[in-house]
Amino acid sequence: MTFEIKDRAAGGRIGVFDTPHGKVTTPTLLPVVNPNLRLIAPKDMRRLFGTEMIITNSYILRQSEGLRERALSEGVHKVVDWDGPIMTDSGTFQSYMYGKVAVLPDEIIDFQKRIGVDVGTILDVFTTPDKTKDEASAELDETLVRAAAAAKAKDGMMLAATVQGGVHVDLRERAAKGIAALGVDLAPIGGVVPLMEQGKYATLARIILAAKRNLPSGLPVHLFGAGHPLVFPLAAALGCDLFDSASYAKYAKDDRLMFPWGTRSLTDLTELPCACPACDRWRTAAALRKAPPAERERTLAEHNLHVSFAEIRRIRQAIRDGTLWELVEERAVQNPALLDALRAVSEPSAVDQLERLEPVSANRAFTYKGPHTLHRPLVTRFHRRLLEAYRPQGKVCYVLPERSKPYGEAYGAYLDAFLAQDATFVVDSPLGPVPLELDLTFPVAQSVFPEILDEEARRVRQRFADAFFDKFQGCEILPFDAREYTDLAPEPTDACRDGWDARRLRAIADHQWGHDASDALLAKPLTYVRSPSNCRVRNVMSRGEHVMSLRAEDGLLSLRLAGARRIHAATASPRHRLVVDDDAGPFVASGKNVVARTVQRVDPALRPGDDAIVVTAKDELVGIGRMLLAASEVREVGRGLAAKTTDHVEAGG
Amino acid sequence: MTFEIKDRAAGGRIGVFDTPHGKVTTPTLLPVVNPNLRLIAPKDMRRLFGTEMIITNSYILRQSEGLRERALSEGVHKVVDWDGPIMTDSGTFQSYMYGKVAVLPDEIIDFQKRIGVDVGTILDVFTTPDKTKDEASAELDETLVRAAAAAKAKDGMMLAATVQGGVHVDLRERAAKGIAALGVDLAPIGGVVPLMEQGKYATLARIILAAKRNLPSGLPVHLFGAGHPLVFPLAAALGCDLFDSASYAKYAKDDRLMFPWGTRSLTDLTELPCACPACDRWRTAAALRKAPPAERERTLAEHNLHVSFAEIRRIRQAIRDGTLWELVEERAVQNPALLDALRAVSEPSAVDQLERLEPVSANRAFTYKGPHTLHRPLVTRFHRRLLEAYRPQGKVCYVLPERSKPYGEAYGAYLDAFLAQDATFVVDSPLGPVPLELDLTFPVAQSVFPEILDEEARRVRQRFADAFFDKFQGCEILPFDAREYTDLAPEPTDACRDGWDARRLRAIADHQWGHDASDALLAKPLTYVRSPSNCRVRNVMSRGEHVMSLRAEDGLLSLRLAGARRIHAATASPRHRLVVDDDAGPFVASGKNVVARTVQRVDPALRPGDDAIVVTAKDELVGIGRMLLAASEVREVGRGLAAKTTDHVEAGG
Repeated sequence: MTFEIKDRAAGGRIGVFDTPHGKVTTPTLLPVVNPNLRLIAPKDMRRLFGTEMIITNSYILRQSEGLRERALSEGVHKVVDWDGPIMTDSGTFQSYMYGKVAVLPDEIIDFQKRIGVDVGTILDVFTTPDKTKDEASAELDETLVRAAAAAKAKDGMMLAATVQGGVHVDLRERAAKGIAALGVDLAPIGGVVPLMEQGKYATLARIILAAKRNLPSGLPVHLFGAGHPLVFPLAAALGCDLFDSASYAKYAKDDRLMFPWGTRSLTDLTELPCACPACDRWRTAAALRKAPPAERERTLAEHNLHVSFAEIRRIRQAIRDGTLWELVEERAVQNPALLDALRAVSEPSAVDQLERLEPVSANRAFTYKGPHTLHRPLVTRFHRRLLEAYRPQGKVCYVLPERSKPYGEAYGAYLDAFLAQDATFVVDSPLGPVPLELDLTFPVAQSVFPEILDEEARRVRQRFADAFFDKFQGCEILPFDAREYTDLAPEPTDACRDGWDARRLRAIADHQWGHDASDALLAKPLTYVRSPSNCRVRNVMSRGEHVMSLRAEDGLLSLRLAGARRIHAATASPRHRLVVDDDAGPFVASGKNVVARTVQRVDPALRPGDDAIVVTAKDELVGIGRMLLAASEVREVGRGLAAKTTDHVEAGG
Repeated sequence: MTFEIKDRAAGGRIGVFDTPHGKVTTPTLLPVVNPNLRLIAPKDMRRLFGTEMIITNSYILRQSEGLRERALSEGVHKVVDWDGPIMTDSGTFQSYMYGKVAVLPDEIIDFQKRIGVDVGTILDVFTTPDKTKDEASAELDETLVRAAAAAKAKDGMMLAATVQGGVHVDLRERAAKGIAALGVDLAPIGGVVPLMEQGKYATLARIILAAKRNLPSGLPVHLFGAGHPLVFPLAAALGCDLFDSASYAKYAKDDRLMFPWGTRSLTDLTELPCACPACDRWRTAAALRKAPPAERERTLAEHNLHVSFAEIRRIRQAIRDGTLWELVEERAVQNPALLDALRAVSEPSAVDQLERLEPVSANRAFTYKGPHTLHRPLVTRFHRRLLEAYRPQGKVCYVLPERSKPYGEAYGAYLDAFLAQDATFVVDSPLGPVPLELDLTFPVAQSVFPEILDEEARRVRQRFADAFFDKFQGCEILPFDAREYTDLAPEPTDACRDGWDARRLRAIADHQWGHDASDALLAKPLTYVRSPSNCRVRNVMSRGEHVMSLRAEDGLLSLRLAGARRIHAATASPRHRLVVDDDAGPFVASGKNVVARTVQRVDPALRPGDDAIVVTAKDELVGIGRMLLAASEVREVGRGLAAKTTDHVEAGG
């Protein structure tokens, strides 16, 4: 395996793709370099846009007498004058454009090997969206035969085997399964250019999801022909790692400028709504229109790549921030067809698929962007866990009209009122009713919402509220009456409230690990190490052992070794566990991180960011691992870490 | 008057602000130049960002011994080394920051005059949002007294008199009325920095609307202290023309980067999600972080201005395209508080105010952006006009499930079916039920919507649908049954259908001018000049006279002179009229455009883009004017054109 996942958000990831000519950080765009046309030299692309990898066409190289001889004698890197990684396409797109292609599948694989490309591509059958299922299935059979033959013949060359299947989700699934079995290095999703040209992004999203759920996480995915920045955020959020396109050049030829918000013809522009270095050279649309044609084309091509690579950087930043869904929703507003695609990824099966990959917390605010926000996988998970894990108390449920000001004077008195009652207190948060105990836990406290939600978001909240209050059968549900506030609240006490923190910690631990583990972790007596300045709980001691720490940034609990022992004793394998092979055990026990390929078994409920207990095959506890991958991915990646070890039994035990 | 409106969209406009040191195109940003700190020299701003006008602080100039003497002897333009227009602030902001200011209102006016600023500002009382209505009212009294005194003392200097009033809408209205009466040159909206700092954009929007509805359209409006591009589109759409801010520099000092989508600290960035020339010099966030502090600050300040001016250009382009609401809705997604502001401008009184300014057509698609799209003034108008003007036919109303493919074979056959029935045919369009006759008229055919709307948009549609079908009382409302299609439709006839076009043209003319004018325009017999290629109607001849032309781009009718005569005869003044003074009559009659200051009276129902009949005070028809302004504005602008003359009685008559 040649791909390693370094960071992640939504279904997207920051990866490192390792090729013979160097490592490439993903997501990224591979500009198409036409060996016959040199609008922008590859070296200039590196200098101007930070391009790390390019794609060129082996079929064009092979069909041109002069280029073929040079490529065979000097290698493709010399021909295109680029010493970085090169991927080549195989003529498939030409077969789509012109109906046929003058090369056999094995010939083009052989040619790609001989000219020294880093990643060669099979000559697959480009299945167009208009193909019936039977037609598409027959074409897929052929593609899979060719992929299998190419996989056998690839030798040292890295191989891209394309997922086809037209618009038929089950065929895309079959294609992905077939390609997953071949052990190739890259899985492009092909045949999608017509969908993108027609703006059928909902279909595109369903196809990507179908492919992704049948491809191992460790196999990078390329979206063939995706060259408009409009589609990058959604495709990246669904797990596409590489994009390529000649669009930057084609659009430039037609006097068209790409923006993350769409495409504009230079002819229609009075202003130049861009500050990229290429546009900056001309300052006004009128000046650029009057530029000599070659300079104008070059300027527009540079503009298109500047904008595309800036969008790639924005996507990577959003992955690192944990805000990729926010970016996807922002960009979707630019094009109604992208909003339809968001609908497609809000369907229950899609949400289930994506929820499995969704980290438990983000580094930044959880921000409302519109009706789609309440359909995000994280919200579904949050609601589901509340329904499963929260334990109501007493015979009354008070509903607060809005969140109390945390840690203010009123809030303190309020907590005392809460403690004085045998009742459940619920806050009417933007995400719906949330127990007061979880009000400071991600994503509730981190949520940034408008004062007035759209009706669709309100309906999602209401649906959850109905289910949530069903938990309180037999309880009286009362709005919290401000006039009774002073009656409920005794005189404010000291700001440190052990009783309140016990309730709160139990609710959080229930939410993170479920009742059995939570009960074991919070066995009485409980004591706390608190912040001297604001009295907030930092460390949780159960029977004198430091079992957990409470994180200020997201209000979630970090497991400590004593706590891991409790969970280990209270639950059966593989619950909460990363099971590593016996050889790896001592390494984790001494504090080394958990290498993915040493993992034998994993609790399928684990999500990126969860604290797992790390055990050997004999179920001996060796440490705690903060998950860097989702459970479903751990056994699918060939490289890199499954978890970062945060505590361990030797020396730390 | 020193301001002329050149183009418009939503409540925003492209204007030209005429100052002693040159003309400035609006909307634009005036960067704050601190005379003591020269982060970026004004001349560099022109070269780097196309800056046309700057703002500096007369109070700081006056308080600094050295600067004061230089300013008095050499003039402010020499001191800041800028030969373009200069506006100065007066110390009001300093009085807000530091509680007091060491200058009297008349002294600072006098000083501004003596140093030769282009636009000086009164020393108004900065009313903060926390002020009660009584406090704010008393402060406003003082501001208005100072404004009146300054207006008397201004001499040759252009004067900005600031609208105050805190968060109290009625006080903002009073302030605007008071300032409107003074004949000043610019009306800044002041006291809003705390609102922007706290993200209270809904309050900001209500304040701007209150000021705008009491200020004449010809008076440019400045939003004091608005320097974050996040707020530009909304403020421009509500009619703000100038922005100013020191934020670009303050943010740079704090290592913060502005984006149209928010603010990011350089510390938090792994990637540099920007391609502006300033960021481009460093390429990566890490490199920029390591830059020497002065260079880093300069880079960030340049970045902030590059981004701000690019956003200004994008706004101007959106105004020219007629898509400013689209841009506002796109940007609102970036910040939940902006979504609340969109709610505020969706309130009925705001929609009424903005609808009066809304052009009848745009140059581009009418694009859905989310729940707010169906609250746009244009949709409200479209629905209202349908309810008022559409005339149902027959005893049956067929509802088509979706828009037919225009001008296709099926559509043609369908029109024959339509003609064969004494029935009304309604299309279930994204905007709600629309008569088939108006299906190709803006904004229906131009609407680009997702397949699935959010629930709020669906509710707006449903509410309209209920009202619309109330018009059909006594009619049977039937879904259109595709199985009956072939029964309804006779054999397809020739593509030219006079009967259908007569129905369609009547519906459009009803929609544009109402029944009386429409009946006069379409007196039978009707004949048509059609496109030879697709048979579309181009010119409409009634009783042999060319009364109207049908525009391909938006499906609306352009009035011709014979049609104007019909409307003139069928309606009483001032219906459909621009009444110009008798001196101006002959100019329009010979084809000259309609100058706003020659207009004596105007039909209040006219909107930008409407065809008005131009008459003299004696109600003699002299021509047809395509409105460049809204009716409410014609008498409020001191400069420029009210309408473009498209046909006229002399030579053309």
